[in-house]
Amino acid sequence: MTALSTTARSTITRIRERARTDRADLHAILDAGLICHLGVVRDGAPVVIPTGYGRIDDTLYLHASTGAGYARGIDGAPICVTVTHLDGIVYARSVFHHSMNYRSAVVHGTARVVTDPDERMAALHAIVEHLSPGSWTHARLPDRRELAATAVLALPLDEASVKVRAEQAGDDEADLADLDRWAGVLPVHTVFGAPEPCPTVPADFPVPAHVAERR
Amino acid sequence: MTALSTTARSTITRIRERARTDRADLHAILDAGLICHLGVVRDGAPVVIPTGYGRIDDTLYLHASTGAGYARGIDGAPICVTVTHLDGIVYARSVFHHSMNYRSAVVHGTARVVTDPDERMAALHAIVEHLSPGSWTHARLPDRRELAATAVLALPLDEASVKVRAEQAGDDEADLADLDRWAGVLPVHTVFGAPEPCPTVPADFPVPAHVAERR
Repeated sequence: MTALSTTARSTITRIRERARTDRADLHAILDAGLICHLGVVRDGAPVVIPTGYGRIDDTLYLHASTGAGYARGIDGAPICVTVTHLDGIVYARSVFHHSMNYRSAVVHGTARVVTDPDERMAALHAIVEHLSPGSWTHARLPDRRELAATAVLALPLDEASVKVRAEQAGDDEADLADLDRWAGVLPVHTVFGAPEPCPTVPADFPVPAHVAERR
Repeated sequence: MTALSTTARSTITRIRERARTDRADLHAILDAGLICHLGVVRDGAPVVIPTGYGRIDDTLYLHASTGAGYARGIDGAPICVTVTHLDGIVYARSVFHHSMNYRSAVVHGTARVVTDPDERMAALHAIVEHLSPGSWTHARLPDRRELAATAVLALPLDEASVKVRAEQAGDDEADLADLDRWAGVLPVHTVFGAPEPCPTVPADFPVPAHVAERR
């Protein structure tokens, strides 16, 4: 396990105590997420798209329809993938110190379109099992036509900045004496609801454990 | 209320039935969000950063520390702001048709650094009330020093693409006969936990209604 790189653009310069440089923190944030926001440059302007992803060791994998506009010309292009968990709303005595508790990972790098069939299949496995653990063994695997319609991108986890705020309100000393204003954290959680079977599934088909017991 | 613009980059070309072109849908998605992902271009590469925001009519406002790296040179630069709600994991009989239910808004435009004091204050009001409704009246308002440390950006909501998937699994006809595989949606919800008062707040200070009753 190596520390995260510290290139200029991945080095956090503001509120440095929120920076994490341990690779395990990066992995944990990525593994706990469901979607990422992928940034690409098109015609000189940024485009930010939500999408799924998966991780194998120190490579992040994304997939896209081969018909997706942003996937065109992406091989070798600079991209940025950000995963954010919002953990709480921070109420302070001052408007200025209102904040959020969060964990975020910003990964910078060059996209590589994966062409090797084995790596493609391993990447799709990682992406599907990230989105829906258990689905790779439960569902029908992709056939040749479906594989041909799917582009797979790889992004090395070489250059990333990781930030975590997990604190109470950071009011100024002078505001602490103010007994008329409240300060604290309102936690934010992401939870799963009750599974909703597709109407095409027979009524007596039990919800499989990998869905019913997902937490 | 006007329809959303349909420039080439904001026109959805894939799975068109997920596209929304009503401005009310854009407003609803932005208003329901807590954070956005801001994309900028630095040295030719995209950078995607999570941040808070607020909306006044058809202008989106963001704020940043004047010390934030991405805020430098942003006046007049192309930016992209994306707000995504993940509403469900879609399990299909085939791995290929696994998907997500979501609502997303991708706004393209040119950032304007707001300098007019009244617009700056109105924007900060919108951002704070978006993050924490009720805080603008409960908390201490920003003083001159705090205002000087805060950069405010405006982005017009002129050019945006809005996508919504709110459906069951979309399996191929041929897979529907497969009685060994489940299909359905696992809903994903964002919820607030119990407020956690700051230890510096007196123990008998009740959690104010704008926090305690937030849903």
